[in-house]
Amino acid sequence: MKTLPRERLQYVFSKEVPPIVHIDPGETIVVETEDASSGRIRSPADIVPEKLTRSPYGNPVTGPIYVNGAEPEDTLWVKIEDIQCDEQGYTLFRDYRLPGLIKETRAKLVSIRDNMVIFSDRVRIPVRPLIGTIGTAPLYEAVSSLKPGTHGGNMDCPDVTVGSLLMLPVYVPGGLLALGDVHAAQGDAEFCGVGIEVRARVRLTVNLHQGHPPAMTWPRIETEDAIVTVASDKPLEKALELAFQDMILWLEEEHGFERGEALLLVTQVADGRVCQVVNPLFTVRCRFPKAYLKI
Amino acid sequence: MKTLPRERLQYVFSKEVPPIVHIDPGETIVVETEDASSGRIRSPADIVPEKLTRSPYGNPVTGPIYVNGAEPEDTLWVKIEDIQCDEQGYTLFRDYRLPGLIKETRAKLVSIRDNMVIFSDRVRIPVRPLIGTIGTAPLYEAVSSLKPGTHGGNMDCPDVTVGSLLMLPVYVPGGLLALGDVHAAQGDAEFCGVGIEVRARVRLTVNLHQGHPPAMTWPRIETEDAIVTVASDKPLEKALELAFQDMILWLEEEHGFERGEALLLVTQVADGRVCQVVNPLFTVRCRFPKAYLKI
Amino acid sequence: MKTLPRERLQYVFSKEVPPIVHIDPGETIVVETEDASSGRIRSPADIVPEKLTRSPYGNPVTGPIYVNGAEPEDTLWVKIEDIQCDEQGYTLFRDYRLPGLIKETRAKLVSIRDNMVIFSDRVRIPVRPLIGTIGTAPLYEAVSSLKPGTHGGNMDCPDVTVGSLLMLPVYVPGGLLALGDVHAAQGDAEFCGVGIEVRARVRLTVNLHQGHPPAMTWPRIETEDAIVTVASDKPLEKALELAFQDMILWLEEEHGFERGEALLLVTQVADGRVCQVVNPLFTVRCRFPKAYLKI
Amino acid sequence: MKTLPRERLQYVFSKEVPPIVHIDPGETIVVETEDASSGRIRSPADIVPEKLTRSPYGNPVTGPIYVNGAEPEDTLWVKIEDIQCDEQGYTLFRDYRLPGLIKETRAKLVSIRDNMVIFSDRVRIPVRPLIGTIGTAPLYEAVSSLKPGTHGGNMDCPDVTVGSLLMLPVYVPGGLLALGDVHAAQGDAEFCGVGIEVRARVRLTVNLHQGHPPAMTWPRIETEDAIVTVASDKPLEKALELAFQDMILWLEEEHGFERGEALLLVTQVADGRVCQVVNPLFTVRCRFPKAYLKI
Repeated sequence: MKTLPRERLQYVFSKEVPPIVHIDPGETIVVETEDASSGRIRSPADIVPEKLTRSPYGNPVTGPIYVNGAEPEDTLWVKIEDIQCDEQGYTLFRDYRLPGLIKETRAKLVSIRDNMVIFSDRVRIPVRPLIGTIGTAPLYEAVSSLKPGTHGGNMDCPDVTVGSLLMLPVYVPGGLLALGDVHAAQGDAEFCGVGIEVRARVRLTVNLHQGHPPAMTWPRIETEDAIVTVASDKPLEKALELAFQDMILWLEEEHGFERGEALLLVTQVADGRVCQVVNPLFTVRCRFPKAYLKI
Repeated sequence: MKTLPRERLQYVFSKEVPPIVHIDPGETIVVETEDASSGRIRSPADIVPEKLTRSPYGNPVTGPIYVNGAEPEDTLWVKIEDIQCDEQGYTLFRDYRLPGLIKETRAKLVSIRDNMVIFSDRVRIPVRPLIGTIGTAPLYEAVSSLKPGTHGGNMDCPDVTVGSLLMLPVYVPGGLLALGDVHAAQGDAEFCGVGIEVRARVRLTVNLHQGHPPAMTWPRIETEDAIVTVASDKPLEKALELAFQDMILWLEEEHGFERGEALLLVTQVADGRVCQVVNPLFTVRCRFPKAYLKI
Repeated sequence: MKTLPRERLQYVFSKEVPPIVHIDPGETIVVETEDASSGRIRSPADIVPEKLTRSPYGNPVTGPIYVNGAEPEDTLWVKIEDIQCDEQGYTLFRDYRLPGLIKETRAKLVSIRDNMVIFSDRVRIPVRPLIGTIGTAPLYEAVSSLKPGTHGGNMDCPDVTVGSLLMLPVYVPGGLLALGDVHAAQGDAEFCGVGIEVRARVRLTVNLHQGHPPAMTWPRIETEDAIVTVASDKPLEKALELAFQDMILWLEEEHGFERGEALLLVTQVADGRVCQVVNPLFTVRCRFPKAYLKI
Repeated sequence: MKTLPRERLQYVFSKEVPPIVHIDPGETIVVETEDASSGRIRSPADIVPEKLTRSPYGNPVTGPIYVNGAEPEDTLWVKIEDIQCDEQGYTLFRDYRLPGLIKETRAKLVSIRDNMVIFSDRVRIPVRPLIGTIGTAPLYEAVSSLKPGTHGGNMDCPDVTVGSLLMLPVYVPGGLLALGDVHAAQGDAEFCGVGIEVRARVRLTVNLHQGHPPAMTWPRIETEDAIVTVASDKPLEKALELAFQDMILWLEEEHGFERGEALLLVTQVADGRVCQVVNPLFTVRCRFPKAYLKI
């Protein structure tokens, strides 16, 4: 099994970046990811202002991965087989996050063991890892890995986790998949600005789905119990609207619901959860229970 | 047990509206609520444009209920004991809801039996009732029952359900609680504009909590497994920010977390879910698992 | 000429407030207005934190004025004949206005003489007075005088000035006009939170226009060189959209432009200026040059 | 004088695009620009749906222009000497622009002569040309020419006109200036989606200003009577906040105003005008009268 080391990091999703590996559809690989600080916050000595300042270069991703045969208009189906987090992570907030309530910048290192984040003496948080940033190369832009978009990118979506199938559009030959920014844990909204940021080893199987569902504008996810659409924009209600629209059109196109019925049903049974409100565009996901697909 | 019939409906939360009943703290009452259409959509013959048009008078509430002894700065603790939905409800969308995708206005009547909404031949939805509109009288405004605010109002929050404890501020003597707009089911965001709108019988126990937690700006809820803050504003990210802030201050004030630690912890473990994006202000809830309070 | 003293102040636009005067259509009156602080900031000794804190009771208005014969669906045409500002005003900012850049709350008193605001030793600003808050009573709500809406209210619009004709909807018998919150000067957006806040004497002529243009949803203004629509909402782009829409429909309904042509023309020649981004809803105005009406 | 023909068009601002010309600081050049449709809308036969559909490739720019000696952290001072519009332009709206009010897509060709846009039989609009899209290459992204940003780009700002001095940041060697998307006329907000779109010949003098004012985050403009800051974000109030902040810091850094005084003064005398609400991010400008700088 090919393993991609975390040595050649990128800060854009771009067709200009040469691939570091070619894989075949159906191949399973291991991708080592760096943390969102590019490894600058590793010891107590790193908890200093100059390392905590936001840099234009953030959120390194490992890649790009060229998927043989992938052509524009195809879709990558990325099965997330496993995520192994490092034994140490960090979290932090900056002084502008809660204006009027908190005036300092603060970071903390946390240990991760026995599948728990040792948040403090008092609090342990079960590890629920997610891949914060994963996407393909856009058609003609080079997009910072700090941003989310129709190509995926920095979505910080808790459903991009072990066992999930993530569907991403192919805009350029090979698709040029890249990923990083794993969080050992993160709630909805990523409110303080970051999750439990860690290095990780991610095992993925990348399948190539020929063609592209006409109704698919944004990334899609299938989890054990739900189908999920993920969209990003500002203000937040616009992201929500886009995610719900894509779900309605998905139900119409592939699951036999008339469009108006899909709108009414999604309203009554779907979850509308915020992924993040801290990146340049904000992200919302719409989760529709699979139970209603089987009927 | 006093029962308030759904005959004297109000369309504002206001201290100018005389109470229809006085109750003592700790008293349990039954409140009959009308549906959001004021009962205009009851039979197939009602599915006509003039009844589906939005009216300035919407979302009738039953009340106000004067709680003896309640004074400004106190808090009402409203325990929702039971919600019995009518056997019939409706849902609808209007022609401006999904511009470009759906151009018609449509409504449908649904039966409710055996604790299921008979959504269609193919789909049944478990009844998970919520009280869409519940609040107290504001300090000096008279606020339409179509709007949410710090007084509660039209929050359309799925956690305002059976078994929940809802905390609402008292601004004027007696508090002047009123409620209506029960939904037999509703997902997050209330995306099409309405839930499964029904008449209902709601059983409540209203307790009076003297004083007001300084950090409480918005309504609070306690469910079986979570504490919840609910805030409303536009754009949606502002509502989210207000709900998360109130949660952080709640954890600081009553649960022994230092403020910065509360910010970091809420980020990793809280849910940020959208209640609705269709009322004059939008509503978000922050859910914090009780498991982390016991440590 | 009737003069309304600034003694009986109100903090809501509401049909529940009894009128302080009845006037006939076409009558000219003088209205004394209090400043936005209710006169609490009058001397250097008033520049203390407890007076600068935002109060729930803000922006007092003088009124309501009952216009004889005004009925729901009519329109008040308010001609602003003159605004005489007091010799002293104040301006201020609060500590949350520019998070990260300014951390203090600060106020300053300014003298006004020879039609100039003596802003500092170095800077003099020509007096260009506006009525910050002016409106009628809503249909069934009681709306804080801190808020703008379809009834007018706290729009902080620089075009509500001497020589302008302001058109306001009548929702309840008598219309119940009230006004206050004069600014001796204010740029677009009212960015620091307040203008040059002053007491003033305002001379108005109030005409009654029977009926209501179907396309008029928001207040309208006619100035010497432009027709103006004013709308309020959040986010700011929504307010802009509403103001531009109302202008397009106005041009269609009363000035002989086909709707699509009106959209294209407004785009090329109208101003889109921000009135304020500091009240509970934000306000934008669309100004269309009268020159294009004469053709 | 070098003339850049409109033959080699680009659709990104990017350091990956090789320059088409090198110029020296202080050099005056002529740049031929293509219209926003890439010349696809030139005759009545072009007014067909497939040409009016929005394409991912929009807003072509001519360039990039390499300014000899320009290094990261420098600033380009671009003096706009002249803009000669073509004799023909177009404008259009699409069916989603005014949901509920207008359901069609429509375009029209207009003649331009004697410095007037012949909008219709009835309406002539004076030509007031602006360069809709002008900017430098970002640090490491490749940004679509449909987007505005700190590098300039698709700002659609009416103050980027003849006689203005536009200041743009240099992020990469040579700066890599590019421009296009001239409008013969455009009001604030560009409400229908486009201005009077034309081909044009633009004469520019490009000076190199060594170094970068620390307070300058966004493009700046100097016109005959005002200094102007321009910022882009969503929602619109965020763009406004960024533009006003940059103005306050500019007044502090270069014009001798203490920061708090600058905040108070900007509030009373600055214009806050919307450039556009139709691009992927929205743009606002803050205009501060030069009269207050001379004191």
